[in-house]
Amino acid sequence: MSTKDELLECLKEGKGTWLSGEALGHRLSISRTAIWKQISALKKEGYLIESSRKKGHMLNGVPDCLFESEIREGLGTCVFGKKNILHFIQAESTNMTAETLANQGAAEGTVVVAEHQTKGRGRLGRTWFSPGGEGIYVSVILRPSIPPNDAPKLTLMASVAVAEAIRTCAPVEASIKWPNDIMIGGRKVAGILTEMSTDMDRIHYVIIGMGININNPSENFPYEIREIATSLFSETGKIFSRAEILRKCLESLERYYETFKEKGFLPIMKRWEELTEMMGATIRVDAIGNTYSGTFKGINEDGFLVMRDSYGGVKRIISGDVSIVNR
Amino acid sequence: MSTKDELLECLKEGKGTWLSGEALGHRLSISRTAIWKQISALKKEGYLIESSRKKGHMLNGVPDCLFESEIREGLGTCVFGKKNILHFIQAESTNMTAETLANQGAAEGTVVVAEHQTKGRGRLGRTWFSPGGEGIYVSVILRPSIPPNDAPKLTLMASVAVAEAIRTCAPVEASIKWPNDIMIGGRKVAGILTEMSTDMDRIHYVIIGMGININNPSENFPYEIREIATSLFSETGKIFSRAEILRKCLESLERYYETFKEKGFLPIMKRWEELTEMMGATIRVDAIGNTYSGTFKGINEDGFLVMRDSYGGVKRIISGDVSIVNR
Repeated sequence: MSTKDELLECLKEGKGTWLSGEALGHRLSISRTAIWKQISALKKEGYLIESSRKKGHMLNGVPDCLFESEIREGLGTCVFGKKNILHFIQAESTNMTAETLANQGAAEGTVVVAEHQTKGRGRLGRTWFSPGGEGIYVSVILRPSIPPNDAPKLTLMASVAVAEAIRTCAPVEASIKWPNDIMIGGRKVAGILTEMSTDMDRIHYVIIGMGININNPSENFPYEIREIATSLFSETGKIFSRAEILRKCLESLERYYETFKEKGFLPIMKRWEELTEMMGATIRVDAIGNTYSGTFKGINEDGFLVMRDSYGGVKRIISGDVSIVNR
Repeated sequence: MSTKDELLECLKEGKGTWLSGEALGHRLSISRTAIWKQISALKKEGYLIESSRKKGHMLNGVPDCLFESEIREGLGTCVFGKKNILHFIQAESTNMTAETLANQGAAEGTVVVAEHQTKGRGRLGRTWFSPGGEGIYVSVILRPSIPPNDAPKLTLMASVAVAEAIRTCAPVEASIKWPNDIMIGGRKVAGILTEMSTDMDRIHYVIIGMGININNPSENFPYEIREIATSLFSETGKIFSRAEILRKCLESLERYYETFKEKGFLPIMKRWEELTEMMGATIRVDAIGNTYSGTFKGINEDGFLVMRDSYGGVKRIISGDVSIVNR
């Protein structure tokens, strides 16, 4: 733990009360001058700290930032985010950063988070709108011992984990659209982009990238997505702590990952089907070069979308762009 | 084309004859001193060039090295190796180098070749014996528009391409052991390691890595693999031009890749089954956590190994380590 983090911990313990520079210096075994230096650094990061030559320092508020120390405070995981959380004010894409780290050998559970993405990515080569401070843009590195063909199951697992985390944090009916969009009232509140490096026998690593719209006012969404995107703020009129929602996502993701490793895909598949908004809906799927219409019947044990066409034939699809025609 | 490559081309055109420094300088529009400098560089690379103040320079022999210029001379491909061939005296692993390049956006058909690998990799976390100058260690970057699930087909395609290239260059019965080992008389002469980066919908890139034992004397193989490895030299007693075999591999790989894109996997699958040594053999497969025994029946249209167990049941396997118990 860095001196700055230790100091922050002391300030948080005594939040709203004065702590003398001398006492803080004594506790951290550094000089009062060094304390002043760290206090300045914390103020620059957005921590509301009152300072007085006579009384010392008092923490009055923490910024809504996804600093390592803010995420870690009360994080109830065993592995995810326990060793490495890398926080960036700005990143091209957290998945790209995580990929570079994973190539360099970063461990399972490494978390990359950015306040703002300049090239936020979505599925099928699309972009993900990633304004600073309004949403969560986070990637987690996994190193599962499963064959490459099983990777789609992890994507579906992540959508279950995020949908549940959102439901826990906000009074909204978050549901899943195949394969991994999280929807509220037919609008997208979160997306997941799973990328991986493999050979034909083994997965080297999987990156689970998550983008979640939290405190975005709806008028801030670009015109092209205003009708199809939403945020927790838009839905509830309330501002949420991004750090808290991120913690819940990491906890939920770790819990489902453990379930997947111990009990396989079946419990995930069941929960996914409970959380989807699509069951029985008429859908259209644009797969590579083909369009299919029919009734959504769920997912199968390999993570394929299962639909029944108008002639009664059953179709299984692993990749495609889904529209819900009617429910 | 660099000045050195242009000079080399002139020398090769006039191989075995004297070319005056003045004439060469005139042709390349550089000074005689500059010619001397490039001649020295070529000599250092192993080109046998006789030089005389009076008569000029004469090329008497080219080194058995996989220099870009040597590979490119007479290379009958349209894309593979046409733009980028990167040659290394030493690399950790050509697949690793190719991966870094692909992440930086290197185009389809980029070729990475090394005289020697310090961390040559094989399937299932194994190493690939990669002594300097004796074998071919090469990786090719592909960017196919196919879903990730189809990637195993490319591995099988590569094994067909390499087996055919070897048969074209040497009087040996190269055959394929599932999924992608190239065998001569039951010993491994070449291996293929396919690695890729994908999301759940699209392949970003595929790296086809090939290791081929060419001029290795059998006594140079490490003790642990002496009984199971072979080389073209061991089989025939002849020394082969590595550059020529590499060219044939690139040409064969490109041809089959075109076939795959135009006509799909079926023609590849048929050719694979003609080239395998396993048809009807009794095999044992160690898949993750399980061992299966039975009769090898071929591969299916998804690239799975198909076997029949002793109770008549049919098993399809996508990843595993295969032993041939008897033929």
